[in-house]
Amino acid sequence: MLTLPALKADPRVAFAGAFDLRDEARVRFAVEFGVPAFETLDALLRSPDIDAVYIATPHELHAEQVIAALRAGKHVLVEKPMATSLADCARMERASAEAGKVLVVGPSHGFDAPVQVAAELVASGKYGAVRMVTALNFTDFIFRPRRSEELDSDRGGGVVYSQAAHHIDVVRRLVGLPVTSVRAVAANWDSSRSSEGAYTALMTFAAGAVASLTYSGYAHYDSDELLGWISELGYDKDPARYGEARKNLAALSSQDEIEAKLRRTYGAPDASANDALARYHEHFGFILLSCERADLKLSPKGLSIYGDAEREFLPIAPPELPRKEVIDEFVGACLGTRRPIHDGRWGFDTIACCVALLESSRRRTDVAPNRLLDTLSEKL
Amino acid sequence: MLTLPALKADPRVAFAGAFDLRDEARVRFAVEFGVPAFETLDALLRSPDIDAVYIATPHELHAEQVIAALRAGKHVLVEKPMATSLADCARMERASAEAGKVLVVGPSHGFDAPVQVAAELVASGKYGAVRMVTALNFTDFIFRPRRSEELDSDRGGGVVYSQAAHHIDVVRRLVGLPVTSVRAVAANWDSSRSSEGAYTALMTFAAGAVASLTYSGYAHYDSDELLGWISELGYDKDPARYGEARKNLAALSSQDEIEAKLRRTYGAPDASANDALARYHEHFGFILLSCERADLKLSPKGLSIYGDAEREFLPIAPPELPRKEVIDEFVGACLGTRRPIHDGRWGFDTIACCVALLESSRRRTDVAPNRLLDTLSEKL
Repeated sequence: MLTLPALKADPRVAFAGAFDLRDEARVRFAVEFGVPAFETLDALLRSPDIDAVYIATPHELHAEQVIAALRAGKHVLVEKPMATSLADCARMERASAEAGKVLVVGPSHGFDAPVQVAAELVASGKYGAVRMVTALNFTDFIFRPRRSEELDSDRGGGVVYSQAAHHIDVVRRLVGLPVTSVRAVAANWDSSRSSEGAYTALMTFAAGAVASLTYSGYAHYDSDELLGWISELGYDKDPARYGEARKNLAALSSQDEIEAKLRRTYGAPDASANDALARYHEHFGFILLSCERADLKLSPKGLSIYGDAEREFLPIAPPELPRKEVIDEFVGACLGTRRPIHDGRWGFDTIACCVALLESSRRRTDVAPNRLLDTLSEKL
Repeated sequence: MLTLPALKADPRVAFAGAFDLRDEARVRFAVEFGVPAFETLDALLRSPDIDAVYIATPHELHAEQVIAALRAGKHVLVEKPMATSLADCARMERASAEAGKVLVVGPSHGFDAPVQVAAELVASGKYGAVRMVTALNFTDFIFRPRRSEELDSDRGGGVVYSQAAHHIDVVRRLVGLPVTSVRAVAANWDSSRSSEGAYTALMTFAAGAVASLTYSGYAHYDSDELLGWISELGYDKDPARYGEARKNLAALSSQDEIEAKLRRTYGAPDASANDALARYHEHFGFILLSCERADLKLSPKGLSIYGDAEREFLPIAPPELPRKEVIDEFVGACLGTRRPIHDGRWGFDTIACCVALLESSRRRTDVAPNRLLDTLSEKL
């Protein structure tokens, strides 16, 4: 739903077919685009009209579907998290290399324009070395309507694969250096919705940079307060609507909850609530980047740059369309005009950090994401 | 200078003598209070008129002076950090027990009224278990005028002993549980003012609580922005005075720097700049406490309490006098009417966390503050 406007608007993109298990999604697709809507992924992948596929399915299906698509000769854009095991990520990356087809992992908040502008400024060396990133996000993630697997840690549920994957993408993009170790606590605080719902992580990078990431999906406090009451998706937010997610959830049976979730997906009768496009860029909470000669604070409107003597606000032009950056990177990669940043290797490294985060919490010690890689190579 | 108004106003306190190396401090004291100003600590400690002493000297002198005072039969209030080695803290704690005299470590921001009110609310069980504390503070600490030992790590300089001691006091008071481990990075980013000037720490507590503490004394960004532009000491702050500490420092020679620092101490001609008392409580940056059934955000005016269904702001009456809480606790303890929270054992445990923070950064692994205690016992 969120990525559709940018796909529709891009003159380089034509819709050639879709696959969905849900009748209502297929019907709407066939009507809206006048092209086939398939009942199986195989049928879609056999279509010679299709060059590239965008896979937006539950986490646990990514690996199998992405590999099938790559082997069928399609370029692939797959939603984060790339997969929920490193072995799967490695297989996906290899399938992309073997097929000579593009694999991009997105959307994620690492694509948000303020993140990319800040990352490029930092990479230019203008502000000296990156020292530290401080990243906080307090949301009601756990209390929004969820499918059962979204709260099942064994199936890639909980906030680590779905939310830390954003956080880590943002921080990795800003720092631009390899992650050397992760020490984290991932916490399961609600037995009625049992999964990791919060984490705090200390990540170290090459060259001595460090990041602190804290996320709570159980929050009562809403950190969008720190972003001028602009929501994660770039809309104005009404702070008076306090506690809505908890209130709504308390009124739902578990069947109602699944239906509430489905109402937000493509083809559902009321799935066009966000007709108005977002006025601001998306964001993933409070992000402060400390460099040698300046601190950069990200906002959905631009960057606050605090220098040694002066501070300034660097506005970033409002988004034309949500997630346009993702489609630009993917389509550019498919056409060979642009080298993707968020490729299979990038996705693998982010999942390695997610796995390290969970592993560190279990073992109560530092975990080096590249050591996980070694263990994996021995296994494969 | 900051504690004097509360000492003067307390009817239970009478000034009976002072010791300072500086002539101008002794002269001012004798004139202001009409009591002896001694040239040595020994002379002061021999005075039978003195029941209790307040020690506000450089960190490295605390242990020797506190132990001498306790052995002379005086109650002692000593500024944080209690000392800069755990062995010294242990000796001080023992001296207090052996002499049967009170030892209180303060002031520190753990005494701030909003911290104490929040800690008592949490301890009441009203909001369920404490889950997580998120604590950030971005200041210009490193660029304010400093004496040389304040930037000498070997002499207890840098932000860990002087600033993490606050941060840890605040967080320990709020959580109210023993610290089980510390994983931290303490960073030295400025070779011209070489000492630890920033840190980020992940602390775990008994019962699974966790805290993330981030401090930068090199900051360009000022986190007082998150506290409604109220300064650490509870005064209104003008955000337009951006970058002043760096600017002023750049204009000073090192001799000027020492003099600038001295101008802020008792007896100096212009050391009464803060004649107007603070309108708000002191604070130590952004502090968010996540409990089972509510999040509490601390501010210099009170507490924002975010519950499951409602949020409220609990105002805290403005401070009568700065640091009154410290004098109340100390005087109450001396009179035997109140059991001090911030006693020698408390101070020891906070320094154990500071040592663990530095040690964790050096060894790049978790350090358990009570294991340091074991090591120490074997040594003693």
